[in-house]
Amino acid sequence: MHYKSSKKFEETTISTQEVFQGKIITLQVDQVQLPNGQIASREIIRHPGAVAVLALVDNKMLVVEQYRKPLERSQVEIPAGKLDPGEAPLEAALRELAEETGYRAGSLKLISSFSTSPGFADEIIHMYLAENLIKGEAAPDEDEFLECEAITLDEAKQYMQEQRISDAKTIMAVYAWQIYQLTGQIG
Amino acid sequence: MHYKSSKKFEETTISTQEVFQGKIITLQVDQVQLPNGQIASREIIRHPGAVAVLALVDNKMLVVEQYRKPLERSQVEIPAGKLDPGEAPLEAALRELAEETGYRAGSLKLISSFSTSPGFADEIIHMYLAENLIKGEAAPDEDEFLECEAITLDEAKQYMQEQRISDAKTIMAVYAWQIYQLTGQIG
Repeated sequence: MHYKSSKKFEETTISTQEVFQGKIITLQVDQVQLPNGQIASREIIRHPGAVAVLALVDNKMLVVEQYRKPLERSQVEIPAGKLDPGEAPLEAALRELAEETGYRAGSLKLISSFSTSPGFADEIIHMYLAENLIKGEAAPDEDEFLECEAITLDEAKQYMQEQRISDAKTIMAVYAWQIYQLTGQIG
Repeated sequence: MHYKSSKKFEETTISTQEVFQGKIITLQVDQVQLPNGQIASREIIRHPGAVAVLALVDNKMLVVEQYRKPLERSQVEIPAGKLDPGEAPLEAALRELAEETGYRAGSLKLISSFSTSPGFADEIIHMYLAENLIKGEAAPDEDEFLECEAITLDEAKQYMQEQRISDAKTIMAVYAWQIYQLTGQIG
């Protein structure tokens, strides 16, 4: 059996109630039976999934600054975005990179697919390494306001100290990049 | 100005509607004004925040396997849990480590505080390095079913390949641990 289907300590669904269906997320509350037979409720966010890109140009990483309403402040992050319906993660990574930074990637490699908040959300982010980049024109969505820059590893660490960079995927990308520099291995 | 309060590209709140208040998360929908004057809606999950612990014993990392209902499968993760009301992150890290693994930490150091899903949630995880551990008895919550083990860095990478480990905070911890081994620096 592939581990990914492991059901150890499974919580069996007794009922599912959809509470909210939004433009991006759906919220449901499940009643579940625990391994000891007791009943508990689980609040679950459904999300379409997303991509993120560690894009390296001349030994610098491309990042975009944007306002994050849930945090009520702006942050510097690697290029990222939700999957469109039916869109493959690799396509989405190429699209988001081009839209947010203007760069086209000559090569893309999956670093990792990971869940962001497995306690309450099913969101998966597929993170890619993009290299051999070719500069074009950025074309963000109409309601997307962001600013792109390229930073060195030392600058990325400085940004982490200052909490300009402070989200999981971007910190993970900086760590992966540092390991790539130290060992030649990614992911 | 400290960067953490940066309001670049700010989205001004016009109205906030609370849609759902659960045991763990709250969902609200905000109407916001974008920098170009247009109106957009933002679906926002409020979360109490959490802690996670990279706990090292004899050059092994403590991990716990548990079922994650949003993913409908079990996963291996570093010890973690939500902040109790009014609880300081450092206390919560000590508490969760002890509850889930039985270990008491002789020293704790903050590696990073990061947002998990800044596009739709305000959840912050405070991740600590725990060393000088003393073995005691695990005492998980009554409705918490998990199994603790200690794994080497090579095993952790193997688990990542197999997607036994596949959540952001645990992958971040493995990367941070590898950098710690390579450079002596953490976070």
